[in-house]
Amino acid sequence: MNTTSRRTIGILLFDDMEELDAIGPWEVFAWWTDHFPADGFTVTTFSTTGGEVTCAKGLVVRAHRRVDDVSGLDVLVHPGGGGTRRLAHDKRHLSWLRDQRRSASLMASVCTGAIVYAAAGLLRGRPATTYHDDFDRLRGIDPTITVRPGERFVDDGDVITSAGISAGIDMALHIVGRLAGPRRARQVREGIEYDPAPPL
Amino acid sequence: MNTTSRRTIGILLFDDMEELDAIGPWEVFAWWTDHFPADGFTVTTFSTTGGEVTCAKGLVVRAHRRVDDVSGLDVLVHPGGGGTRRLAHDKRHLSWLRDQRRSASLMASVCTGAIVYAAAGLLRGRPATTYHDDFDRLRGIDPTITVRPGERFVDDGDVITSAGISAGIDMALHIVGRLAGPRRARQVREGIEYDPAPPL
Repeated sequence: MNTTSRRTIGILLFDDMEELDAIGPWEVFAWWTDHFPADGFTVTTFSTTGGEVTCAKGLVVRAHRRVDDVSGLDVLVHPGGGGTRRLAHDKRHLSWLRDQRRSASLMASVCTGAIVYAAAGLLRGRPATTYHDDFDRLRGIDPTITVRPGERFVDDGDVITSAGISAGIDMALHIVGRLAGPRRARQVREGIEYDPAPPL
Repeated sequence: MNTTSRRTIGILLFDDMEELDAIGPWEVFAWWTDHFPADGFTVTTFSTTGGEVTCAKGLVVRAHRRVDDVSGLDVLVHPGGGGTRRLAHDKRHLSWLRDQRRSASLMASVCTGAIVYAAAGLLRGRPATTYHDDFDRLRGIDPTITVRPGERFVDDGDVITSAGISAGIDMALHIVGRLAGPRRARQVREGIEYDPAPPL
């Protein structure tokens, strides 16, 4: 299978995004596509300008591509973090998200990424989740959303929203299961040794 | 408390390191030190040259500092990944690690970071763990190591080694508990919503 025929998972990077929101799913998808290229997927990161972004806690990450060079995404992953307060009022970004909604098979958000999806109108009448401190904020933006506290992620078919920060890892494994089957998702889980055991 | 009196946690970045090995613990430590500065800790990243590193799966991250500008680390976190094969034979790096061993309170490794610690002689006669495919490699480098499969991390006092990739998150929370108490570690765990529920 050549590269051009691969389906692309794109992870949006932006200033003041929460580090693990993006890089948890990145690890899951990159481990999968690196070890099983015949599954036909690839993963990339992109940002508005294609350069470096400074994350919420100060980590600096360089996006692989500019948003204008990304087309035909199959899966979009929108992280959360402090930067979502700006993006939720960025008309160009919200319009771009609505365009993606028409072309991508799956729109996924981590943490307060759901706030931006809500602001773009993507969650209208749907069940969804977000960071645990932001349930009211999500309802406030769009009262038609059925907020589901206590779930790691909410799969509503073509839109999946996850709870805060580390929940993006669980959601990404679920997406691998949807795209390539549960056996593959278990292989990825074993590969990244995701048998979590919080010590306290 | 001013910055100069803070105890510093340093996360080493290097080419071909596994992304989540470094950024899982980064998220834990950065969330903690950002929300609770009065605890007196700070976290930074550093690399040999202080510039960008290209991780094992292709993510590009820029280190905050050069190794020569980092002194007096209280905690060192050494990630794993393909780049450890090179570092385990890099005499300058191994010598630097032995220097750190004499000055830092705690040497922590994630995944195959333990291979490099073993090559530096830091695990002699100690219990330790590493990535699940590399137990024999660890024993091969230093037969005096008691390898402990099946544990998320092995706390041997001033040296802590974790299992593969995502296990670094569990280890980092454990370290927060050691440095600032179990209540604080639980707050950080709640902050990053680390109630993992692997979907399959």
